Amino acid sequence: MRLLLVNGNTTQAVTEAVCAEARSICAPGTAIEGATARFGAEIVTTHAGNAIAAHAVLDLLAERAGSYDAAILAISFDSGLKAARELFRAPIIGMTEAALLAACAAAPRVRMITFGETALPLYEDLLRLYDLRNRVADVRCIDVNPATYLGGAGRDDAIMAELAAMPPDGAPVVLCGAALAGTAARLQPRSAFRLFDGIVCAVKAAEQPGVAAALAHQHTPIATIGLSPALAEAFGGGG
Amino acid sequence: MRLLLVNGNTTQAVTEAVCAEARSICAPGTAIEGATARFGAEIVTTHAGNAIAAHAVLDLLAERAGSYDAAILAISFDSGLKAARELFRAPIIGMTEAALLAACAAAPRVRMITFGETALPLYEDLLRLYDLRNRVADVRCIDVNPATYLGGAGRDDAIMAELAAMPPDGAPVVLCGAALAGTAARLQPRSAFRLFDGIVCAVKAAEQPGVAAALAHQHTPIATIGLSPALAEAFGGGG
Amino acid sequence: MRLLLVNGNTTQAVTEAVCAEARSICAPGTAIEGATARFGAEIVTTHAGNAIAAHAVLDLLAERAGSYDAAILAISFDSGLKAARELFRAPIIGMTEAALLAACAAAPRVRMITFGETALPLYEDLLRLYDLRNRVADVRCIDVNPATYLGGAGRDDAIMAELAAMPPDGAPVVLCGAALAGTAARLQPRSAFRLFDGIVCAVKAAEQPGVAAALAHQHTPIATIGLSPALAEAFGGGG
Amino acid sequence: MRLLLVNGNTTQAVTEAVCAEARSICAPGTAIEGATARFGAEIVTTHAGNAIAAHAVLDLLAERAGSYDAAILAISFDSGLKAARELFRAPIIGMTEAALLAACAAAPRVRMITFGETALPLYEDLLRLYDLRNRVADVRCIDVNPATYLGGAGRDDAIMAELAAMPPDGAPVVLCGAALAGTAARLQPRSAFRLFDGIVCAVKAAEQPGVAAALAHQHTPIATIGLSPALAEAFGGGG
Amino acid sequence: MRLLLVNGNTTQAVTEAVCAEARSICAPGTAIEGATARFGAEIVTTHAGNAIAAHAVLDLLAERAGSYDAAILAISFDSGLKAARELFRAPIIGMTEAALLAACAAAPRVRMITFGETALPLYEDLLRLYDLRNRVADVRCIDVNPATYLGGAGRDDAIMAELAAMPPDGAPVVLCGAALAGTAARLQPRSAFRLFDGIVCAVKAAEQPGVAAALAHQHTPIATIGLSPALAEAFGGGG
Amino acid sequence: MRLLLVNGNTTQAVTEAVCAEARSICAPGTAIEGATARFGAEIVTTHAGNAIAAHAVLDLLAERAGSYDAAILAISFDSGLKAARELFRAPIIGMTEAALLAACAAAPRVRMITFGETALPLYEDLLRLYDLRNRVADVRCIDVNPATYLGGAGRDDAIMAELAAMPPDGAPVVLCGAALAGTAARLQPRSAFRLFDGIVCAVKAAEQPGVAAALAHQHTPIATIGLSPALAEAFGGGG
Repeated sequence: MRLLLVNGNTTQAVTEAVCAEARSICAPGTAIEGATARFGAEIVTTHAGNAIAAHAVLDLLAERAGSYDAAILAISFDSGLKAARELFRAPIIGMTEAALLAACAAAPRVRMITFGETALPLYEDLLRLYDLRNRVADVRCIDVNPATYLGGAGRDDAIMAELAAMPPDGAPVVLCGAALAGTAARLQPRSAFRLFDGIVCAVKAAEQPGVAAALAHQHTPIATIGLSPALAEAFGGGG
Repeated sequence: MRLLLVNGNTTQAVTEAVCAEARSICAPGTAIEGATARFGAEIVTTHAGNAIAAHAVLDLLAERAGSYDAAILAISFDSGLKAARELFRAPIIGMTEAALLAACAAAPRVRMITFGETALPLYEDLLRLYDLRNRVADVRCIDVNPATYLGGAGRDDAIMAELAAMPPDGAPVVLCGAALAGTAARLQPRSAFRLFDGIVCAVKAAEQPGVAAALAHQHTPIATIGLSPALAEAFGGGG
Repeated sequence: MRLLLVNGNTTQAVTEAVCAEARSICAPGTAIEGATARFGAEIVTTHAGNAIAAHAVLDLLAERAGSYDAAILAISFDSGLKAARELFRAPIIGMTEAALLAACAAAPRVRMITFGETALPLYEDLLRLYDLRNRVADVRCIDVNPATYLGGAGRDDAIMAELAAMPPDGAPVVLCGAALAGTAARLQPRSAFRLFDGIVCAVKAAEQPGVAAALAHQHTPIATIGLSPALAEAFGGGG
Repeated sequence: MRLLLVNGNTTQAVTEAVCAEARSICAPGTAIEGATARFGAEIVTTHAGNAIAAHAVLDLLAERAGSYDAAILAISFDSGLKAARELFRAPIIGMTEAALLAACAAAPRVRMITFGETALPLYEDLLRLYDLRNRVADVRCIDVNPATYLGGAGRDDAIMAELAAMPPDGAPVVLCGAALAGTAARLQPRSAFRLFDGIVCAVKAAEQPGVAAALAHQHTPIATIGLSPALAEAFGGGG
Repeated sequence: MRLLLVNGNTTQAVTEAVCAEARSICAPGTAIEGATARFGAEIVTTHAGNAIAAHAVLDLLAERAGSYDAAILAISFDSGLKAARELFRAPIIGMTEAALLAACAAAPRVRMITFGETALPLYEDLLRLYDLRNRVADVRCIDVNPATYLGGAGRDDAIMAELAAMPPDGAPVVLCGAALAGTAARLQPRSAFRLFDGIVCAVKAAEQPGVAAALAHQHTPIATIGLSPALAEAFGGGG
Repeated sequence: MRLLLVNGNTTQAVTEAVCAEARSICAPGTAIEGATARFGAEIVTTHAGNAIAAHAVLDLLAERAGSYDAAILAISFDSGLKAARELFRAPIIGMTEAALLAACAAAPRVRMITFGETALPLYEDLLRLYDLRNRVADVRCIDVNPATYLGGAGRDDAIMAELAAMPPDGAPVVLCGAALAGTAARLQPRSAFRLFDGIVCAVKAAEQPGVAAALAHQHTPIATIGLSPALAEAFGGGG
């Protein structure tokens, strides 16, 4: 299976991080490719950045159409998920939805840890649209810049501190954010809670039997202007 | 008050229709300007078109920043509403939210009439995010192309047929869609139900005392790439 | 348009305050009249007072039937709103519902400030019946007697103190209470939040195109005893 | 225990019917008295009638204060329930709430049968305020005038027809309406479903150990005008 | 009426306590019998204990089938309630559901006091399945072992302390737990809140007219292995 | 990883079917063992059967404790899931919850197909406790006996007929029931919808990185009587 990881942030280092983690846990027959948004916020943390990222994600999916059997939105707000499922034939998986659902299979309530307070309203909207609000006990923020986080120095301390502050109710924890790819695997041995990584869960969800079944798919062509040729073609019925 | 009507569709005739209707009902001191999306679907009817429209709307709002005291999203999905409120200092009103709320002030339950079945899931998401699902008795679709509708021939018949089929419970009806601007005023004398027009309601909402109060507003600058200069500047803290 | 403001409290000074504010912001062609409940609590703050006020409101609406094109319930619990809409042909607007809906058109979450803790359960019921609970971040009470408030001395301090204590999230604030009519306009220049006044919003809602459309309206006559002649006639099919 | 049945309808025959049924099933030590609303609809079936009934109910409860240990609202909309609980020291039971709760103790889902379609919106509001909407599978209406029903001729046929049309899921049925007092007992032998009578259930609820415990109770006096002397006194702190 | 109290705990002293309380308040014609689970936790406080108790309860109900006209689940989680209603012809009442519903007939919001924090998640599930979550203001735990409680020494202090800490809003209190049978009656004279006892309420619910109506009842026989002969027969269509 | 599939039905053929399917799709390092309930319904389809199955499942998990690294409840009601998670250290996965969550990662709405109408109320309770009701568009029943189904003759026709009747909205379908293990894989090539198998999804969920992390786990010992020695020991703190 050819799996495309579409990073809706414009930071190439995030794409590299998610691809590295995906390759480390995918099944033998899965080939991982990455793609980085060509326009938009370096790291998306607001509604505005998220709105641009949805466009950028569709653009990449259109440009690469035919080169992947399934795609993962490697951005923690699953930007453009419903739009992408309309336009493209291949299955599209959101990394955060996949992680939340995987964690829910292990326990009745889960927690989330993510970057920065500005993103909280976006997660609230996401949880409501996913109808998962009641299964998430809380969403906690670490006060760390995602770019700094990728740089690495002392990066695990803030997460370990959040984990240490959690009630001992056994709820698993979703580490939420593309820049956190690989962190769950690194910290699991030191954690009293099960940790879930959005990229890992999305790859596993894409590899589930049935997901990539080649279903018939068609949509009514829609006339557009001013889009990239590939995206215009996707609206026109391709993809 | 300078009021900008931002049409997230790329069809200029829609912009003209909404501006005409807005000018016909605005207060004496209100000046109406229109702007048409430079890229995206001619008429947005899907999640994919809506995702692009959000970007296009932000682009226009940034480009015109400083030339308006308040802005109306003249597209029936209020595309980019939350994102626009983050980036810009001026008040932003969504035409469909404004119409739903105005109709709710007149009755406990309201109805919606709009174009095309493909848009239904978008309205469902909108009503849930607005927490207005319980106040809307149903959303009805007329099987008419919005572009055809603007052309005019025999255009009121489909709506009159829907109105004739409604239960006589007195619920007001929101005519939902930028291409329907002005229709409520034209059909009201022939209707047994109160009719609400998104553009009219949005103009009235923008003119409410207090809405355009010049509040302090600031957001953390966010680095971007590949955006139009004006939009990049908006992310950078301007607007 | 002839607009009747029906004050369900028995305090004449409240009627004068709401009429003054309404006249200061209504459209040129709107004529404002007031009416004061003839029985019930001086200022309604409890379920019991509210129950009596609903009767008093219907009584006034019946007595004045034919003299108004639309009516506003100038009492913060919108007492008797559904009942009035059954009995009378003219549109009926509730001042608090109108203010909440107008504020919601400006932002996803709003706040309320009102008088006295005893009224909190009434607002909770109101928000649930209006399906607006999720859009109201909180309801705050100032510990001031409404009658004292009308008297004027130092009356803005308590509200300014509440405003100062609010989180800086930009949520608009509804000043909730007939005795607060005009306060929003007076305090807006000193406020970091958009302020909404129930009377102002109700007048604007009544003036919306379509609201006062002369619709057919009829209800099954209902036999009554012991009511005022006008109200008995309204039950009997008039109004 | 002295138990007052307060009929918020102005039809004396309904009061007689509810008292007769109450006396037939109350405990040996319970004394039943009835009171009929002095003003309002002969039979309440609308929001408007219900609003007046709430006032009439409070009036009766105030007039008889001191002569009862607990009171039952013998009107199917439990008109004025919250208001009465504020004003009076004695426990107040609503006949419909009592019947719904008693039926719920016997099965996870229940049904309601009542008079007339106009009352449906009132029951919907009631079920939402009671948080019981999910436990009521449906509310069915018989097309019979309550006054006719009391007259007796052929009166059980409409109810037996509704019962015959119900799905065989064992859900108990609440016969909802003061004019239906005694019907459940008469029809139970012919019914495949358990039948619940609001008056019976309310009497049993009032007789529950603990309900009539003489608790301390006080409320802040409220100034009123134009009320009956007894009701004015109740607002003033008596009752 | 022959009423069977089925204790899903394996502690005989609890059975004796619930039967004593039931006998003290039942109607003259009611005969009370008790039965104690033959396997499972001495006192159920966890999901695991509750799962076993459901089996034990069904076992007792099958074994005694024919000897009772109605049965009460005398265990605070109403263990096996839905299952028992499927298998047996006689009405089955859950003590906690009955108490909650009885308390709700007296006030819009109620409170619960129970033993031990481990049981909180079980009550949360119960309240959600009963659709009563919104009517329960809170669930408070006393840190007392139920077995100790039955022993008696100083046993009322913990409950009186909880009652003293409650807000003075008049909400009645359900004392929740089979081991608390009789406590409400003992403490009511010292309490500022109305107290409800699950066993008392369940007996009153079983005695409601209509509950024990001899309805037709049949279910499809289901083949089983390894169950007690009586329970196997109940699955096979008896009961 | 040693994975135990616990079949809460007492039909050995179901255990064999689920193990066969699990072995066909598990990762190379996963060893699959099965266990069949020693008491209860041959095939669970009712609340009563489900209550017994929860006990039987705990019994098997206790008996085999130490022989597995994770366990799957191979019964479509996930009988005893919360109870098992309390008692045992190893992760426990419910086959139906796992399938629903996996399907949700592929699409916003999903459908279920299962055996027999009697099971519908059990699925409704399950969906509510899992907070997944809004994500499931509908639950459809085939009128086939699960035992017959295992026998094989013409067994796919009923499911193909249900699939043919579904709206073409692309919603994936969960084939719900232990006796349906392997059916999704067999029918996927003939289906226009993605099909999900509870056993497959549960195995994949158990194999997710992090799930089997060896976390500390302890619970307060609980005294029991009459249980199997292994289960008594599990209550006593082992597992």
